[in-house]
Amino acid sequence: MLTLYAAKNTVAVAPHIALEETGLSYQISWVSFADNDQRKPEYLALNPKGRVPALVTADGIITEAPAILDYIAEISGDLMPTDAYARAKVRELVSYLASTMHPNHAHGLRGERWSDDPAAHASMKAKVPETMAASSAYVESCLPDNGWLVGTYSIADIHLYNVCRWLKGDGVDITDYPKLAAHFDAMHARPAVVRVEGAHG
Amino acid sequence: MLTLYAAKNTVAVAPHIALEETGLSYQISWVSFADNDQRKPEYLALNPKGRVPALVTADGIITEAPAILDYIAEISGDLMPTDAYARAKVRELVSYLASTMHPNHAHGLRGERWSDDPAAHASMKAKVPETMAASSAYVESCLPDNGWLVGTYSIADIHLYNVCRWLKGDGVDITDYPKLAAHFDAMHARPAVVRVEGAHG
Ligand SMILES: N[C@@H](CCC(=O)N[C@@H](CS)C(=O)NCC(=O)O)C(=O)O
Ligand SMILES: N[C@@H](CCC(=O)N[C@@H](CS)C(=O)NCC(=O)O)C(=O)O
Repeated sequence: MLTLYAAKNTVAVAPHIALEETGLSYQISWVSFADNDQRKPEYLALNPKGRVPALVTADGIITEAPAILDYIAEISGDLMPTDAYARAKVRELVSYLASTMHPNHAHGLRGERWSDDPAAHASMKAKVPETMAASSAYVESCLPDNGWLVGTYSIADIHLYNVCRWLKGDGVDITDYPKLAAHFDAMHARPAVVRVEGAHG
Repeated sequence: MLTLYAAKNTVAVAPHIALEETGLSYQISWVSFADNDQRKPEYLALNPKGRVPALVTADGIITEAPAILDYIAEISGDLMPTDAYARAKVRELVSYLASTMHPNHAHGLRGERWSDDPAAHASMKAKVPETMAASSAYVESCLPDNGWLVGTYSIADIHLYNVCRWLKGDGVDITDYPKLAAHFDAMHARPAVVRVEGAHG
């Protein structure tokens, strides 16, 4: 049995969807950001970074959404193409989302990570609609005219959906990006995604 | 033949070392940041993100250091453990380096990515020694007392070495982190690393 430590509507939605898609046996342990659970000693003992997601496995704990997604794909034999180049294209998008687009988003809420000056936090927050629009345009350019990123459904589609859930709050209108909007709708229609949305709703 | 687009002393050092370690046939195409090559139309046609690294393969172009490292491991059959949990721990560190520690470093030089205010850039730069020290302490806590991250040498050790090359310039004294310092020295002593250092020197 796997246990995913997740906070609602965070990047933990991505591994949550992946688990639900694969049919692996898992449970969710909720971390409440409202209660600052992620900074309590019990949670820091699991993940000293004080972040979600964290996945507890029989072998030990795995953190970082990209690593957890790849692990779920690997143990389920699902959600990843077989060809090495296609796998690299999946990991390329996941890495972009985790290392560029997610940090762009985080500058709206977590400016204190990178500056101690409240005026700087305000200026970072002000730029989020611009950086998230630029990221959306880049991601739009990666998508094919129809269907999933690399043809078959993969962890990249799941991570992309998760980040796109934030666009509205970040001042970006997804309908400005037709392929991204169609991708989002296709994800939103999947039964596993509907179930996970229910849990985070 | 693989072609790696690399700029000196950037995150492209990591895939450069990985290629050199595996003995795959490759060449380097240098991108000069001094000349702003990464923003010229010729390069943007290869990588619209205007960043390095980018790897040109027979199948197409791969960007993002984590994806390129995983691809090099996959096609060479080297630099990755075989066990699924150990592989996840490798990818966990790579993801942390790419999505947290590398962005922490980037706030010293590239504040314009996240704010339009010069005063904010200065305050971000001022915090880099603190965030890079915190990241160093976290990474130190991941390392075993001796040897490589997961026992066998992997892409995580390579990416870690690359980020540690920046510590001095970021105001962090690596000898404050004894396991990290020993890891750095062990990497620095590898013949493939010596050759790549020569190319970036
Ligand atoms: N690189 C990490 C980032 C994880 C992360 O930043 N999670 C956020 C939620 S989206 C968090 O836990 N923030 C809590 C905090 O900053 O206190 C990953 O991809 O898993
Ligand atoms: N997430 C990317 C980040 C790549 C990146 O930011 N590279 C830097 C060099 S370390 C760059 O090309 N900067 C050029 C610029 O910002 O103009 C990766 O891991 O490959």
